[in-house]
Amino acid sequence: MRKAYLDHMASTPLDPRVLEAMLPFLRETFGNPQSLHSYGQEALAAVDEAREKVGLLINAPAEEIYFTSSGSESNNFALKGLALANRDRGTHLVVSAVEHQSVLNAAKSLAKLGFRTTEVPVDKTGRVDPAEVDKALTKDTILVSVMTANSEVGTIQPAAEIAAMCRAKKVLFHTDAVAAAGNMPLDVKALGIDALSLAGDQFYGPKGSAALFLKKGIKILPLIDGGIQEGGRRAGTENVAGIVGLGAAADIARTEMDGRMTRMRTLRDRLIDGLLGKVEHVVLTGHRTERLPHQASFCVEFVEGESMLLSLDMKGVAVSSGSACTSRSLKASHVLLAMGLDHALAQGSLVFGLIDSTGAEDIDYLLEVFPPIIKRLREMSPLYTKFLQEKK
Amino acid sequence: MRKAYLDHMASTPLDPRVLEAMLPFLRETFGNPQSLHSYGQEALAAVDEAREKVGLLINAPAEEIYFTSSGSESNNFALKGLALANRDRGTHLVVSAVEHQSVLNAAKSLAKLGFRTTEVPVDKTGRVDPAEVDKALTKDTILVSVMTANSEVGTIQPAAEIAAMCRAKKVLFHTDAVAAAGNMPLDVKALGIDALSLAGDQFYGPKGSAALFLKKGIKILPLIDGGIQEGGRRAGTENVAGIVGLGAAADIARTEMDGRMTRMRTLRDRLIDGLLGKVEHVVLTGHRTERLPHQASFCVEFVEGESMLLSLDMKGVAVSSGSACTSRSLKASHVLLAMGLDHALAQGSLVFGLIDSTGAEDIDYLLEVFPPIIKRLREMSPLYTKFLQEKK
Repeated sequence: MRKAYLDHMASTPLDPRVLEAMLPFLRETFGNPQSLHSYGQEALAAVDEAREKVGLLINAPAEEIYFTSSGSESNNFALKGLALANRDRGTHLVVSAVEHQSVLNAAKSLAKLGFRTTEVPVDKTGRVDPAEVDKALTKDTILVSVMTANSEVGTIQPAAEIAAMCRAKKVLFHTDAVAAAGNMPLDVKALGIDALSLAGDQFYGPKGSAALFLKKGIKILPLIDGGIQEGGRRAGTENVAGIVGLGAAADIARTEMDGRMTRMRTLRDRLIDGLLGKVEHVVLTGHRTERLPHQASFCVEFVEGESMLLSLDMKGVAVSSGSACTSRSLKASHVLLAMGLDHALAQGSLVFGLIDSTGAEDIDYLLEVFPPIIKRLREMSPLYTKFLQEKK
Repeated sequence: MRKAYLDHMASTPLDPRVLEAMLPFLRETFGNPQSLHSYGQEALAAVDEAREKVGLLINAPAEEIYFTSSGSESNNFALKGLALANRDRGTHLVVSAVEHQSVLNAAKSLAKLGFRTTEVPVDKTGRVDPAEVDKALTKDTILVSVMTANSEVGTIQPAAEIAAMCRAKKVLFHTDAVAAAGNMPLDVKALGIDALSLAGDQFYGPKGSAALFLKKGIKILPLIDGGIQEGGRRAGTENVAGIVGLGAAADIARTEMDGRMTRMRTLRDRLIDGLLGKVEHVVLTGHRTERLPHQASFCVEFVEGESMLLSLDMKGVAVSSGSACTSRSLKASHVLLAMGLDHALAQGSLVFGLIDSTGAEDIDYLLEVFPPIIKRLREMSPLYTKFLQEKK
């Protein structure tokens, strides 16, 4: 059977060049970077080199990169660490309604420690209006966290405008760039942001490798206390191979960014136009142009996301119907609901994410197998039968 | 030059069989375990299998194993998560004075949130007297954390006795088994403990792979909030290859435990007896018999730990002079000071950790190169010169 992995948003395969870079650190170069002997020195040099490379990807100096184990850890580190370190200045946070669960739930945990969070709304394309953030800011606000781009609907947020507004009011600004980093150009200096989360497995790096960018001079408390790793801000023996892999993936992403984006956008638009043209009662979710180059998402009426996903899986096509981090909860996505989609339509969510090896033939294969799947699923749908009867 | 890696306590090499087990998950089986399609299912099955294997190593059911990214994360998860989830029952913690920095500093962070910690002392072998723990318990105590064995001095703690005492008083008991797990038999049921931390890179598994055992029914708050991974208790995309590696390492450790321990003990004693016999003014630190099978540590008078370490490194021998997690801080070890060693002697700390591939010839090589190093370093030591003059 033909196979097409179109679930970049859940995870990317590891680039074979990244694995090559990692292998020595899974074999002979196994030292602990904190050891003072030559085994340790070799490991430390590799970690330092990776730090440089991750910094280059987002135009940050190496010393502003802190390695973590996942995008979720980076988001928790940023929210909890910045909130707790700056509580003398205030206890109010602002996030958008479409943030990842790791941001939203970190904010909920902070509520138990005396912090208050305002969720700003988004428009029907999933975009935050910077004016809404401005309205939410109070004298007590210490931190705003708005993502760079949303993995479920692809929408890119006006991060630079929000950052500028925060800077003017001396409020810290963090952005969850897990879906964006490595897939579109990011420049923390041009954006003027204080903290940014990124994760390797969203750009062909290893799972378990991620980072938090934090501008020099900003106070943060560790999420993981202990030894002197990561400048004393994130304890734990370094996952050297994972870090080296993250560095290698960052290096490849940076040098191949332009070509990759052009290729992705062409394929993405082929998928969007093809699917909207071939299947009735389908809406594109998210913004049409302010959109991740490799992402295409839809809501299909009268069909459940999970049924589509499993039917496509039987044809060898891997997609998701929302965030992988909540896939088994079977609740309608908070992102789609925040965008004003009704509950029934939100159930028919489908998220495509193209990967480096995706070709036009994969898109065409999807467009070939998808319409009969939808036809069959709708034939079994009482809602669709009712719709047809009412139409008559 | 001959090479002898005798720094197990900083990190072990990856067992080639563990790497073999990991490789498919760094290549074709790259799915996100939370994805519902076949790529995800394959990854999830591998994670579940690893969870079984890690459970078997310590006689715990798979559902009581939570994967993390390091021993330090596991320790932070246990201390902060258990304290915050059980604060309605009290705000007092008890730890030993020789715990790892990740336990001690997590307790310090909890102090900022209204918790109080008592540090119980140890005797000159580094052992905690269970009676001291008993004395420290108050009506307000919710959690005791005493390590299974100490990496710097090798001493094994009376964990079962302390656990029994905690159980009788309905106080939770956590043990940091990072140095012990995989290197000596551990049975969480027989020990009667509630929570245990372990880390893969201490028994030939990958760095970045670790776990917390937590008995079913015990309340804990996540350190990393977000998605539904690890039963909603530890969010973040699973480091599948790392987890598979941890499982494989646990499997090997369990099946090869007996032989490994016998071999290690023989080599360890060859090192201890040889070194004490060949060099004057050296003391063994830690307990002579209640000791990790692969660990041997000393304090060498009139010499600094770092000088010995670097001199040995030039001879191809890798050792450490304390915990890798604080190696660059150059402070005397809090473990040695808690054992009552004076500051000057504690500066001469040297920690050996044997690995699977260590042979008698490695020990003999060390015993050959070490005495001349000590002789040379002492010749340069003003303290030693003074000692000799006073002796005359």
